[in-house]
Amino acid sequence: MTQLQINEVAPRDGFQIEATFVPTADKIRLIDALSATGLARIEVTSFVSPKAIPNLRDAAEVVSGIQRRDDVGITVLVPNVKGLERALECRVDEVNLVMSASDSHGLANLRMTPEQSLEQFAAIVEALRGDPRGRNVFVNASLSTSFGCPFEGEVPEARVLELVERQLALGVQGVTLCDTTGMANPAQVARLCEAAQARFPGIPFTLHFHNTRGMGLANALAAWQAGIVRFDASLGGLGGCPYAPGATGNVCTEDLVHMFEQMGVSTGVDLDALLAASAMLPALVGHDTPGQVVKAGKADRRYAMPAR
Amino acid sequence: MTQLQINEVAPRDGFQIEATFVPTADKIRLIDALSATGLARIEVTSFVSPKAIPNLRDAAEVVSGIQRRDDVGITVLVPNVKGLERALECRVDEVNLVMSASDSHGLANLRMTPEQSLEQFAAIVEALRGDPRGRNVFVNASLSTSFGCPFEGEVPEARVLELVERQLALGVQGVTLCDTTGMANPAQVARLCEAAQARFPGIPFTLHFHNTRGMGLANALAAWQAGIVRFDASLGGLGGCPYAPGATGNVCTEDLVHMFEQMGVSTGVDLDALLAASAMLPALVGHDTPGQVVKAGKADRRYAMPAR
Repeated sequence: MTQLQINEVAPRDGFQIEATFVPTADKIRLIDALSATGLARIEVTSFVSPKAIPNLRDAAEVVSGIQRRDDVGITVLVPNVKGLERALECRVDEVNLVMSASDSHGLANLRMTPEQSLEQFAAIVEALRGDPRGRNVFVNASLSTSFGCPFEGEVPEARVLELVERQLALGVQGVTLCDTTGMANPAQVARLCEAAQARFPGIPFTLHFHNTRGMGLANALAAWQAGIVRFDASLGGLGGCPYAPGATGNVCTEDLVHMFEQMGVSTGVDLDALLAASAMLPALVGHDTPGQVVKAGKADRRYAMPAR
Repeated sequence: MTQLQINEVAPRDGFQIEATFVPTADKIRLIDALSATGLARIEVTSFVSPKAIPNLRDAAEVVSGIQRRDDVGITVLVPNVKGLERALECRVDEVNLVMSASDSHGLANLRMTPEQSLEQFAAIVEALRGDPRGRNVFVNASLSTSFGCPFEGEVPEARVLELVERQLALGVQGVTLCDTTGMANPAQVARLCEAAQARFPGIPFTLHFHNTRGMGLANALAAWQAGIVRFDASLGGLGGCPYAPGATGNVCTEDLVHMFEQMGVSTGVDLDALLAASAMLPALVGHDTPGQVVKAGKADRRYAMPAR
């Protein structure tokens, strides 16, 4: 039985900050390869303004061009009602709304305070539920800087939970708690995961970690120990944050899958197929990736004895 | 109160496999800097044959040249009675004997099966206890491939525990369980740590992890959750294994200290001083290191808001 649900975010969270535009056909080829690995969901693009994120200017072509499978949810980032319209035209399974838990990160990243983001959320959910095409679309919200803000520092747990409550009150169905710049530590992760699940029982929480300070997998372990079964992860460890230069990116999908599978926790993912997809990345993005299993091989890799 | 004891191994485990010889004066300068950070122990060198490991041919000069402090244990790797003699001349606090849990790794790395290594251990401990200079020297044994062998694969837990028992029967006082090539996963770590401590209560176990597949800190977390408080770690994440090319090295000391301090678990280490020592490494070894906190900064680092 599959125990975890992995949401692959490299096509959106990874490609958006790359120095170069990944050609649409390459994006589609990669997403199709990812779809065949057993991942639960793929966040394939973002319906933001092409001017804001030129790398994702082909959002509609990507969503329309990929092969759809019943067992893989296709989710897209939607910043506003206009983006929602574009997403609905492409028949997505899920929309992901993003806001920050801290004012300064929200202003720096989205030009919106949390209050303004919640107003946007309300408008998006209202438009979605008023549209026949949106009837079965799942609404997830990602809450950036849930574990700390690179500008403000600590974000109180009570503030995070308050914002989650307000998201849910607007009709959001699932919430992703994001460690946007890799500030979280395992003790903090355990505390927030336990508090969130206790206060909002039955709500599917997803955890989104970055490996900025090497703690990505340790934080995922702590979250899983606290009962979390849904994780965002990025193929090859692509991604990152423009405010943390020199740092590595999102927690790496294949390294995360490898760890849990080694532990005997089923992810439903074909790790070999995932590693093959990861091996496509350097040619697509023009640089090496931070993923480690793709370089070292799986833990069950056997070496020949050295010659004496 | 300090809750963890960190044993810094970069001067031995790291420098031994570097492509270039680190000059003796630079080794001494680095070790003196490390001694001032609050680390519990430093494995400063190895009294192996200079032909076997030319990078550590200055072992006696290093041990004699460093500043000694009452609060920092100086430990050295000792492969045989001859190495022990050289170590005792330098008044070390602890000797570390190394063997493998698997035949093929023992033969590849030490040219000895575990049985042959145990005979060596017996000779070393006998010589140590018969020497007045060795009366207060602590004897630790490191058991390589405790979590799997890169040639043979799985090493049964029963085999690991049997070898620990035989080490202790010879007069070994502490045991380091080593994940030599980064094969361990957190579930396995928890199981072995619990089993070892249950079977050998009161014996100080140290855990030695590599970050080959990104699981170094997750494994350290799992070991700590299982009651382990002693860890080997390597400044900058130096080290590695000649049988796992392309892979990253030992778990990184400053990243380990950072994680536990962020969790509120005291390591006794001044992290800023440790990061300053880590920043010395690229000049000493001639390349970048895998450590992440030294690049990204600590989790409490604050960034200026970007200009609009």
